[in-house]
Amino acid sequence: MASTTQPEISAREPTLDDVRVAARRLRGVVARTPLLHPATPGFPLAGTVVLKPESLQVTGSFKPRGAYNKLASLTPEERARGVVAFSSGNHAQGVAYAARLLGVPATIIMPTNAVAAKLEATKALGAAVIQIGTTSQERLEYGAALARERGASLVPSYDDPMIMAGQGTIGLEIVEDLPNVEAVVVPVGGGGMLSGIALAIKSQRPEVRVIGAEPSGAADAQASLRGGHIVTWERPDTIADGLRATHLGTLPFALISRLVDDIVTVGDDEIRAAVLALHRCAKLVVEPSGAVAMAALMHGKTGVEQKRTVAVLSGGNIDPAVLGGWLLEGGAT
Amino acid sequence: MASTTQPEISAREPTLDDVRVAARRLRGVVARTPLLHPATPGFPLAGTVVLKPESLQVTGSFKPRGAYNKLASLTPEERARGVVAFSSGNHAQGVAYAARLLGVPATIIMPTNAVAAKLEATKALGAAVIQIGTTSQERLEYGAALARERGASLVPSYDDPMIMAGQGTIGLEIVEDLPNVEAVVVPVGGGGMLSGIALAIKSQRPEVRVIGAEPSGAADAQASLRGGHIVTWERPDTIADGLRATHLGTLPFALISRLVDDIVTVGDDEIRAAVLALHRCAKLVVEPSGAVAMAALMHGKTGVEQKRTVAVLSGGNIDPAVLGGWLLEGGAT
Repeated sequence: MASTTQPEISAREPTLDDVRVAARRLRGVVARTPLLHPATPGFPLAGTVVLKPESLQVTGSFKPRGAYNKLASLTPEERARGVVAFSSGNHAQGVAYAARLLGVPATIIMPTNAVAAKLEATKALGAAVIQIGTTSQERLEYGAALARERGASLVPSYDDPMIMAGQGTIGLEIVEDLPNVEAVVVPVGGGGMLSGIALAIKSQRPEVRVIGAEPSGAADAQASLRGGHIVTWERPDTIADGLRATHLGTLPFALISRLVDDIVTVGDDEIRAAVLALHRCAKLVVEPSGAVAMAALMHGKTGVEQKRTVAVLSGGNIDPAVLGGWLLEGGAT
Repeated sequence: MASTTQPEISAREPTLDDVRVAARRLRGVVARTPLLHPATPGFPLAGTVVLKPESLQVTGSFKPRGAYNKLASLTPEERARGVVAFSSGNHAQGVAYAARLLGVPATIIMPTNAVAAKLEATKALGAAVIQIGTTSQERLEYGAALARERGASLVPSYDDPMIMAGQGTIGLEIVEDLPNVEAVVVPVGGGGMLSGIALAIKSQRPEVRVIGAEPSGAADAQASLRGGHIVTWERPDTIADGLRATHLGTLPFALISRLVDDIVTVGDDEIRAAVLALHRCAKLVVEPSGAVAMAALMHGKTGVEQKRTVAVLSGGNIDPAVLGGWLLEGGAT
């Protein structure tokens, strides 16, 4: 989809150098999230699992890493013409945050049924918001037309080398902060974060296992890795609203198919249990999409449960009322 | 109370050197908690306030810092005779955690109406738990008698130089990680953490403002600082269950009266609002006692709202069902 508006040069795969350039750009702009070593006895896998909480990132998810790197890579002329992005969730806030810092006019196309809190957060970051339709196809078509009309740049949510390189800075930080890491488990939707992290880690430390985790109700990435081609999942059905992309991006798939060791799946009940375990024992607010890696480890899906494993928690933007209900149902024990 | 069983030497005030020794002992034993800079537009004081989340500490609160430092300072003979502590909450888990790591037999006296989750967590850490009475006076008398009988060491929750020095390591980390800090706001109950942090910071950087925050329903520390002597608050009434100590410890008061610039108070509604703001915007699970510093800043109580200010979040052990109810009442906005 990016190919209609992105210049040819953008379609190349990102390299480790791109990730390093992104890391320099992001210094002081986004948080270097900590690694946490939960030691509470009630915490599943206490003592082996290490958490990388991008829920504590600015805007509550990893998205500003890629968005800022993308916007910072535009020419002054491109920046002046502004950017357009379409998103119902975290990518919207990531782009709005980056655009505000760089003084780039940003228009975000959001669905008419967008969650009020996410709409408000995006507007509060200074972006213009246009609400159109309810399907990603409608937003994509409208956004592409708007970008053409204005000469603006589209900011894809994952299928772009600068976006992937930006998300890959998570992998650089993991290797720097935990040199003896043995495995990393990463949520996968469109594949921007998984491919970026795999690139950063495998280029430096090929022996480290890199594993994707996705909902069993949107298991296109596993099917794609196993089938050797991009598989489309027609009807994603999962509580992990950030992982409902119907298929991997072209560039992410190219890297994932070469670099990622395995992709595993988890059910919604397992995701919910992970959200609650992270809340109760690690004192972190993590959204369902952000908890799939932890869910896979908790439920023995990965084969790396006994290794020194980092679980990437990709975001924390969960509806407080939904989480409140889960906490009440789960009781006080 | 410590004077009946502690050797005379323990009654001296701690020094900056004691805090530095504690920091060396604690390396690799407790987490060096990160400093977080929330930048989400909805977050109160985004861009000025910096968070020090001891909620992410092992056992979910700052307590293991002091407990481990105290136990590590005992002689091999004292350690072999074991330790006794009384606590209804976070101190119990802190002592149990430290005792397990050092192989010291630990007995924790808890009230008969202790929260089941806290009881289980303490047992899971390997401590023997004895449930006695419902008042702190009953636990204190029983614990002191038990310690005398066994030749065991009492581990006070705040009125002890090694406990204070251990909690003071939070202050060392703040100065190291944020050299241009201008003010620090710290919850105060018995005063162990506030006095330790004030010692660590004021000894190095006397120009940094150090401010205590406590519930208006248990405002003995403010009365003590203003009155120049330890004031007892007969009936603490606050949702901040960790800050219901009726009076400051003798040693903490000595340091606080010399080093702390001000003590401010917040109501339960303000504390609850801070818990919810930290949950929604900073993605942190913080208990009421842990949110009083943030509450004071949010509601303009400190006079340092415009400075580069660190809010110490002392713990995250809130009953999930209580928090769930608050999240539901607060709605999804």
